[in-house]
Amino acid sequence: MSAKSARPASYAFQGERGAFSEEAARILLGPSPLRALPCVRFEELFLALKEGRAAAAVVPIENTLAGSVHENYDHLLNFNFPIVAETSVRIVHNLIALKGVPFSKIRRAFSHPVALNQCLNFFTRNPRIERVPFYDTAGSVKMIVEQGLTDAAGIASSVAAEIYGGRILRKSIEDDRQNFTRFFLLRTPQYARRHPIPAAAHAHWKTSLVFSTRNVPGTLFRALSAFALRDLNLDKIESRPLRGKPWEYLFYADFVGRMDTPNARNALHHLAESADFVRVLGCYPRGA
Amino acid sequence: MSAKSARPASYAFQGERGAFSEEAARILLGPSPLRALPCVRFEELFLALKEGRAAAAVVPIENTLAGSVHENYDHLLNFNFPIVAETSVRIVHNLIALKGVPFSKIRRAFSHPVALNQCLNFFTRNPRIERVPFYDTAGSVKMIVEQGLTDAAGIASSVAAEIYGGRILRKSIEDDRQNFTRFFLLRTPQYARRHPIPAAAHAHWKTSLVFSTRNVPGTLFRALSAFALRDLNLDKIESRPLRGKPWEYLFYADFVGRMDTPNARNALHHLAESADFVRVLGCYPRGA
Repeated sequence: MSAKSARPASYAFQGERGAFSEEAARILLGPSPLRALPCVRFEELFLALKEGRAAAAVVPIENTLAGSVHENYDHLLNFNFPIVAETSVRIVHNLIALKGVPFSKIRRAFSHPVALNQCLNFFTRNPRIERVPFYDTAGSVKMIVEQGLTDAAGIASSVAAEIYGGRILRKSIEDDRQNFTRFFLLRTPQYARRHPIPAAAHAHWKTSLVFSTRNVPGTLFRALSAFALRDLNLDKIESRPLRGKPWEYLFYADFVGRMDTPNARNALHHLAESADFVRVLGCYPRGA
Repeated sequence: MSAKSARPASYAFQGERGAFSEEAARILLGPSPLRALPCVRFEELFLALKEGRAAAAVVPIENTLAGSVHENYDHLLNFNFPIVAETSVRIVHNLIALKGVPFSKIRRAFSHPVALNQCLNFFTRNPRIERVPFYDTAGSVKMIVEQGLTDAAGIASSVAAEIYGGRILRKSIEDDRQNFTRFFLLRTPQYARRHPIPAAAHAHWKTSLVFSTRNVPGTLFRALSAFALRDLNLDKIESRPLRGKPWEYLFYADFVGRMDTPNARNALHHLAESADFVRVLGCYPRGA
């Protein structure tokens, strides 16, 4: 057996080990022999799939506070790996320190500024704790454990505490509990062939697509009629202006249903009549 | 004259002085006697308007890479100040140092991690420069100038260089030039009465609204028919699932036209028939 085939395949995600993407990966992949492959940039996830360095990738696509991640929609269009599953993860921030360090000793909290800014009520209640910006949520826990800091904590996911051996001193210190991120699972065709997803196990399916229309009054209405006239329900519809192309728009749409039913096939055929461009990004079991 | 009335009124924005919001403010307000009122949180902008501490506020609402800022749509609904103008600002990141410091001396670049991550090609080309996460883009320039650091630079807007007296060593070092943020201008009713915007000066208007529909197939289609049947063009349509209320959605829509024309009034009346809730957020001259 060669060294290459002996190495188990990996799944790519953006961030350090213990990032929220890794929490999503646990839900999407279940118990899996795939190794974690952390990436710095979103594009690297897609390149890792393309170059065969990853068998799967976990991609954040929208957040309830921050909106859609347009960059990842662009990568989905450019790299053309189908979405095979979705899930939503609640963004829970925890104060995590070295084991044995009590809460009363904490004077500094390291984390990504976005996370620090989502825990402002905690810092108002605990003015003795200074906020220190750091590159990454999970990376702050890694650094504190590695350097053995006894007056500092990181703010990160519970998975980060587990991976780096930190202890959660305060759970769920975020201001807003309505903070969810939706993730897609992508897989290479090779891996998908070896690990088919049993279709019968799922009652509800969703299909994601991207289309563009010329911006003349009523074209979106005509495009949506393709779904409405067939009682296909849209879970999401979002427009995005195409920069540098005034009056041209991309639409992201999710409808409830399987792409391979006659009803959905007819709807896509009808949509193609009024749209300049239509691409199905994937058809997958609807997440909880 | 009391001290209170002698103090000129202010405009509120999120971030340090020199933030991209301040660049938007210069476009939206023009030459203005209003003082800058920097705020830490978005909610503070709205509270400053409500409590009369600001006469105007500049609010980012969407970014071409990151999507809509849902939090600010929520504040627009809750605080009920009408949008009176819009503009888009291209996010240009500049390397800014103390005056007299040459590029060859720079070993560290401070900025917000989001900005650092938008300049990865620059760091690949200049491996001797270390990336250092900081709270704020403009704040990094402020800190470097105040502390007189001669081996460091900040990454921020050109307005930040101007305000803090830094020198731009490298212009436009961002990876992606298609990075724009759209901003709204809000004003208190008192200030708006004293400074009316001359309607005749603008040929093109836009109206922003939020509405919700019950999620039964075809309701969005019926809602959009209110606009399509009247040749009113939609510039933006975006859905947002309401967390905790499965199957309920908010829609953000912008149509091209003035709210006070008979055609638009009829469309809004028609929309109200199929929507659970409709609120006009403002009617304003269309930005460049």
